[in-house]
Amino acid sequence: MSKTLRARDMGLSCGNLPTGPHNSLTDVPGVLVGHQTLIHDDIRTGVTAILPHSGNLYREKPVAAVHVLNGFGKSVGLVQVEELGSIETPILLTNTLSVGTCATALIRHAVAANPDIGRETATVNPLVFECNDGWLNDIQALAVTEEDARIALEAASPDFAVGAVGAGCGMSTFGFKGGIGTSSRHLALSGKDFHLGVLVLSNFGRAGDLRLPDGTNVTPAMAKNSTLETEKGSIIIIAATDIPLSDRQLKRVIRRSGVGLARLGSFWGHGSGDIALGFTTANIVHHDENAALVEQCVLNENRIDLLFEAMADATQEAVLDALIAADPMTGRDGHSRPSLRDALNRSPSSRT
Amino acid sequence: MSKTLRARDMGLSCGNLPTGPHNSLTDVPGVLVGHQTLIHDDIRTGVTAILPHSGNLYREKPVAAVHVLNGFGKSVGLVQVEELGSIETPILLTNTLSVGTCATALIRHAVAANPDIGRETATVNPLVFECNDGWLNDIQALAVTEEDARIALEAASPDFAVGAVGAGCGMSTFGFKGGIGTSSRHLALSGKDFHLGVLVLSNFGRAGDLRLPDGTNVTPAMAKNSTLETEKGSIIIIAATDIPLSDRQLKRVIRRSGVGLARLGSFWGHGSGDIALGFTTANIVHHDENAALVEQCVLNENRIDLLFEAMADATQEAVLDALIAADPMTGRDGHSRPSLRDALNRSPSSRT
Amino acid sequence: MSKTLRARDMGLSCGNLPTGPHNSLTDVPGVLVGHQTLIHDDIRTGVTAILPHSGNLYREKPVAAVHVLNGFGKSVGLVQVEELGSIETPILLTNTLSVGTCATALIRHAVAANPDIGRETATVNPLVFECNDGWLNDIQALAVTEEDARIALEAASPDFAVGAVGAGCGMSTFGFKGGIGTSSRHLALSGKDFHLGVLVLSNFGRAGDLRLPDGTNVTPAMAKNSTLETEKGSIIIIAATDIPLSDRQLKRVIRRSGVGLARLGSFWGHGSGDIALGFTTANIVHHDENAALVEQCVLNENRIDLLFEAMADATQEAVLDALIAADPMTGRDGHSRPSLRDALNRSPSSRT
Amino acid sequence: MSKTLRARDMGLSCGNLPTGPHNSLTDVPGVLVGHQTLIHDDIRTGVTAILPHSGNLYREKPVAAVHVLNGFGKSVGLVQVEELGSIETPILLTNTLSVGTCATALIRHAVAANPDIGRETATVNPLVFECNDGWLNDIQALAVTEEDARIALEAASPDFAVGAVGAGCGMSTFGFKGGIGTSSRHLALSGKDFHLGVLVLSNFGRAGDLRLPDGTNVTPAMAKNSTLETEKGSIIIIAATDIPLSDRQLKRVIRRSGVGLARLGSFWGHGSGDIALGFTTANIVHHDENAALVEQCVLNENRIDLLFEAMADATQEAVLDALIAADPMTGRDGHSRPSLRDALNRSPSSRT
Repeated sequence: MSKTLRARDMGLSCGNLPTGPHNSLTDVPGVLVGHQTLIHDDIRTGVTAILPHSGNLYREKPVAAVHVLNGFGKSVGLVQVEELGSIETPILLTNTLSVGTCATALIRHAVAANPDIGRETATVNPLVFECNDGWLNDIQALAVTEEDARIALEAASPDFAVGAVGAGCGMSTFGFKGGIGTSSRHLALSGKDFHLGVLVLSNFGRAGDLRLPDGTNVTPAMAKNSTLETEKGSIIIIAATDIPLSDRQLKRVIRRSGVGLARLGSFWGHGSGDIALGFTTANIVHHDENAALVEQCVLNENRIDLLFEAMADATQEAVLDALIAADPMTGRDGHSRPSLRDALNRSPSSRT
Repeated sequence: MSKTLRARDMGLSCGNLPTGPHNSLTDVPGVLVGHQTLIHDDIRTGVTAILPHSGNLYREKPVAAVHVLNGFGKSVGLVQVEELGSIETPILLTNTLSVGTCATALIRHAVAANPDIGRETATVNPLVFECNDGWLNDIQALAVTEEDARIALEAASPDFAVGAVGAGCGMSTFGFKGGIGTSSRHLALSGKDFHLGVLVLSNFGRAGDLRLPDGTNVTPAMAKNSTLETEKGSIIIIAATDIPLSDRQLKRVIRRSGVGLARLGSFWGHGSGDIALGFTTANIVHHDENAALVEQCVLNENRIDLLFEAMADATQEAVLDALIAADPMTGRDGHSRPSLRDALNRSPSSRT
Repeated sequence: MSKTLRARDMGLSCGNLPTGPHNSLTDVPGVLVGHQTLIHDDIRTGVTAILPHSGNLYREKPVAAVHVLNGFGKSVGLVQVEELGSIETPILLTNTLSVGTCATALIRHAVAANPDIGRETATVNPLVFECNDGWLNDIQALAVTEEDARIALEAASPDFAVGAVGAGCGMSTFGFKGGIGTSSRHLALSGKDFHLGVLVLSNFGRAGDLRLPDGTNVTPAMAKNSTLETEKGSIIIIAATDIPLSDRQLKRVIRRSGVGLARLGSFWGHGSGDIALGFTTANIVHHDENAALVEQCVLNENRIDLLFEAMADATQEAVLDALIAADPMTGRDGHSRPSLRDALNRSPSSRT
Repeated sequence: MSKTLRARDMGLSCGNLPTGPHNSLTDVPGVLVGHQTLIHDDIRTGVTAILPHSGNLYREKPVAAVHVLNGFGKSVGLVQVEELGSIETPILLTNTLSVGTCATALIRHAVAANPDIGRETATVNPLVFECNDGWLNDIQALAVTEEDARIALEAASPDFAVGAVGAGCGMSTFGFKGGIGTSSRHLALSGKDFHLGVLVLSNFGRAGDLRLPDGTNVTPAMAKNSTLETEKGSIIIIAATDIPLSDRQLKRVIRRSGVGLARLGSFWGHGSGDIALGFTTANIVHHDENAALVEQCVLNENRIDLLFEAMADATQEAVLDALIAADPMTGRDGHSRPSLRDALNRSPSSRT
C-alpha cells in the first residue's frame, strides 16, 4: 500500500480505538488479499481474493458468519455459512454478473487441492460477493474469466493495494469513485494483542449524502467532474479477526457494519445489496476431525462491546479509505466519477 | 412416574436408539421437573416447571436455543435466547392467558435469589411457554396465580408425573386427551454416555390425523366418548442434553422436533404455536465471568445426525407418552376428551 | 404537547423531509397515545399505551412487523407478529420487570371486548415492550399494576405528552434524562398525503457518545449535575403509517430505525434491547373474514427509499425529542440524570 | 409423461385431496418445465428448467419465497428472494458444481431479453438450485455447459418427463435411484378452481429409512442390485400455485415441504441441502411499475391449512413419483442404484 494516499493521510479517522500496524484487514495474522484489475476499452472491473489463511481452507475451515443488511444482492454461498457457521474456500469479490464464473473458479481451485471433493467427501461451497459496477464498466461483457479469478487468488499477499483496484476498479460511492478500502483496530484482551480488520468493496450511497467523521457533508459537485445520477450501489464488508469467537458472536459483531454505513450518511437504500461476512482465524473446524467432541475458545460476551465499536469504526473508515485511495475514473460511454480526494482539496469546508 | 402407563407400556416406541434409564427428560443429570395442577369447577389447567439445574440459573446460564416451527403462539422470552444463546431462569409451561402471571413469578423468583438484578446488574429474561387449554378449561378465568408457579418450581424433582398434569391438565391432542409426555435417548460419544431428553406440552393435531409408529391411523371415534370439533392446538417441545453443543448446534437439533410431529400426522397447522427450546447442561455461561476468553466444548458436527435422529424419535414418542398417560377428562361446559389408551384397547386395528 | 419544549424548538431537526402537522406519531390518522406516570418514593416508572386505531383491534388487526436490532430484551408478543404479520392488541410500553403485569392487563382488556376469546375463537397475543429504568426507578418494586395499564389505555388520545412521562418516566439516554419522544414525516405518493410517525421509548446510549445532527458531540459533563456511570439501556421504536404496505415492506422500513440510532452515536450496544415494531393503518386483517381471497394495497417497492429516509430521520429526531422534552430527574437512592436541554443551554458549542 | 410409470400407477398416493389433471407442477396454468439430460462415459447429470410463465420474467416478477429446511447446500439467489419476495428469472436445477455455469447462463438469458440490465436498470438475480449427484456422476468433470442450460430452457413445456432426467439424471433417494418427480393438488376456493403443484429434485434420505404411505419400510436390499453406502443427499422442492398469496403466506406454505419429507422417513440429515422455493402466478411485481400503490390479492389466512395439507401431501408424493419413475442406473466407476419400482415388484410387503 506504498504510495497510495489513505483516509488517515487526509485526516479522516473514525473513533478512538488504535489501529493495527498497517490499518488493514491483513493486520490479522495469516490473512491475505490479492487483486486482478481489468481496464481496457469499456471494461473497468476485476476480482479481489481474500484468503483467511494460506493453508487448505477446505480442510481447515474458519468459523464464520454472514449478515444481510439489505438483500438486494446476488452474492453466493450464504446459505451454508448460515447453517454451519464456517467457510471452506477463499472469498472472491467481483461484479454482479461475474459471480457464476468466480464460483466455478473457486470450485476448480478447491477440487484441485482436494481431489476427494464430490467423490469420497462432500462438495464445496464457493463464496462470491458482488457489487454492480455497470456505471463505469460494460458489465454485460462478462469480462471476468476463471483465469482472472485464479490470478487474484495467486496474487494474495499481506500487502495489497486499495482504491480503484481488483473488484473495486469500476465501483462508485456517494457519487465519487469508490472501490476497495480497508481499516483495522488493535484490541487488547487479557493482556494479549488481537486485531479486527475490515475490507470493503464500496459501491453504495446516494450522491450528496456523504458525511465525513466531523459531520461535514461532501457532494460530488465539490469535485471538478461531478456527476448527478442516482446511485444504486451495494457494499460488501469482509471482517477478519484473530479473537476466538463463536459464529453467533461473529454475527453480532459484523451486524455493526451497518452502524458505520449509517454514520457515513447511508440509510441502506432499497436497491443496495449490503452484505457482511466475518471470520475468525482463531477457531477452525477440521474437515477430517475424528474426535466426537472438540474444544473451542470463545469471547466472554460481556466484553463484546469493544468489538462492536471496532467494527463500526473500521467499517466507516474502510469506506473513507476506498474513497480517498481511488483516483477519478472515466469508463463506459464516457461515464466518469470524481475522486473524493480532489473534492476535499477543493472544498473550503475541509480546509480546517 | 410409578403407576402411570406410558407409551412403551402400550407397545408404542419410536426409532431404534436406546432410551435413557427412565425414558425421561430428567435422564439428563441435574434436570428437574415439577407440576402444579388445578382442577376445580370449570378449571382444568396448571403450571409445569423445568429446571435445567438446581443451582442459581441466573448466575450459571445454560447454553440454549429456540426454534419456532409455527409462530401462532404467545410464548415469552425467545428474543433474548435468540440473541445470546443462553437461558437464565427456569422454564415455565402454562395456559396461554397465564403467561403474564408466570413471567412475573419467574421475575420475583430470580430477584429473590439475585438481589442485584435491576440494580447493580442487568434485568432478567423469564421463559414462559404456553398452549391454549380453552376447550376443557375456563381459560378466561386466569386461574393460575404466582403462587401456583412457585409451587410448581418448588415441586421440581427428577421424578415427575406425565399425562393430564401441570400445564398439561386441560390440553388435547389429535382429538384425544393430551398433556405432558416425555422420552429420552441414550447416546454414546467417544465411549462416554450422554442423553438427550424431550418433554412436550402436547395440545396439537387435528382429530383423525393421528398416526401410530406402525402407520395405524387412530381417530377419536375409536374411543367411547369421542368428540369431533376441530383442534386448534399448539405444542411446546423442551429438549435437554448433557452433550456439549453450541447454541447453533442446539438450534439445528431441536428443529428436528418438527420431524417427530410430522410422523404423528401433523402438518404444523396454521393455528398452532409449535415452539421448541433446547438447552445443554454441559456448556454454562457464567454471569460473573472475569476471563476475557473462555473455553467451551462443542460437538464435531459430523456426528450430529445421531442427535437429529434422537430428537425426532424422542419428540414423536413424548407425544405418544402424553396421549397414553392421560386419563379421559370432562371439563368446562361438559366438554370432554377421550383417552387414546381407551381407544387402543377398543380398536381392533391395534389388537395385532 | 402544549408547553413542552421539543427537539425542533432547540433547533434540532433531522433530514430534509417535511414533518407532519404535529411532528408526532399521531399525525397518522386514528393513532392514539396515552400515559400513566408513577412518581413517588423511589418509584420513577409508568406505562405508555399506543392504539393503532380506536376500534376493536382484535377484530380489525393492522398489518405489522417487528425487527430486532439487538435482542438483549424481554419484550412480549413478537413471535406471532413475525408469523402472521399483524397485531391484535394495543401496544404497551413499560419497565422490564412489569411486562408480565402489562401482558395480563392487555389480555383482560381484549377478553372484555371479545368474550369469545379462548372459547369460540382463538386466544390473544398481547404486545408489551420494555426498557430497564432501574437507575432512577426501584424496578424491583414491580410498581406497575394492571390498573395502571388500564389507565394508560383509557388516556389514549391524539394529543400526548413527551419527555419523562409514562413508560419514559425513569429512562436515560446517552447519560442524560431520556423517555418518550416522537417525530413524523409527511410523504406524498400519487398526489395523496400520507404520514410516517415514530414514537420512541429511549433508554440507550453510552454517556459521551451522543452526536447532534450537526456533528456536535455532547457529554453529560456539559450539564450541571452530570453522572458518569455506564449506560446499559435499550430502545423501543414504534412506527405507524397510513401508507398501505405489506408486512415485509414494513419490516424493511422499520429496520432503518437502526440508521437513526447510529447517527446519534450508538453502536447498538450488547446490553441493549433495541426493538422496532411498525404497523400500517391502511391494511387491516379482519378476524371474522369470510371471503377466501382478499384485496390489499401495497407500495410499489421502487418508491420505498422515501420511507427508509423518513424512518431513519424520524427515529433520530424522536430520540432528540425525548432528550429535549425530558426535565432532569432525581430518583432511587439519589441517582439523577441531567437534561440535554440544560446541557445545550450551557454549552458554547450549541450557541451558534 | 406418456409411458413412464408414476407413483399413483403403483398405488402410492398421499393424503385425501384431489390431484390436478396431470398430477404435475404444470397443472398450474402457464408453468413450464424442460430438461437437458447428459449421459455419456462417466457423466450422469443434467439441467432442469422451470419457467413460472412464458413471458419476460424480469419484467413480470412472480411473488415468491424461499425456505431453508437444512442449509448444507450451495443454491444461488436466495438472498434477494428473501428481501424482495419475488423472482425474476427461470429456475434452474443442476448438480452442485455446475451452479456457477447455470447462473451465468441465466444472466445471459436475461440480458438477451432485457438489454437495459446493468445499464439503464438494475442487474439480475439468477436462481440456481442443486443437489450432489457425485455417486453416479463424475461431478468433478463440470460437464454442464451454458449451452445445456439454454437447451433446458428452450425445451420447457407443460408436458415434461419425470424420473432420471434433466438435473435428476444422476440423483439417488433412500438408496434407490432418485431424480425428478412431481405432484399437484386441486383446491377450490370461493367456488373457483386453483392448483398447487410441486416438483422435486430428489437426492436425499438414508438407505433403509424409506417409508411408504401405508407405513411399509422399504430398503434397497429388496431390489436386485442393492447398494449399502450412506446417502449424503439433498432435496430441492419447487412449489407453484395460481392462488394469490403474499410472500409471507408462500413461505409458510412451502415450509410444510418438511412434513412431506419427514413422512417419507427423513430427519433432514446434516449433510443435506434441503431447500424449498415457491411462487404464485397470481401476484406479479411489474419491473416498470409507475403507480405508487398497487393492488394485490392475498389469501384469507384462516384458509391456509388447506394449502399446508396440499403442500405436505404433494411433496411426499412427488418424491415417490421420482422413485417410481426412475429406472435403475449404473454410472461412474460402476456405481449403481436400484429402482424402487423393482423393489416393490419383488417385495411381498407391497403385493397386497
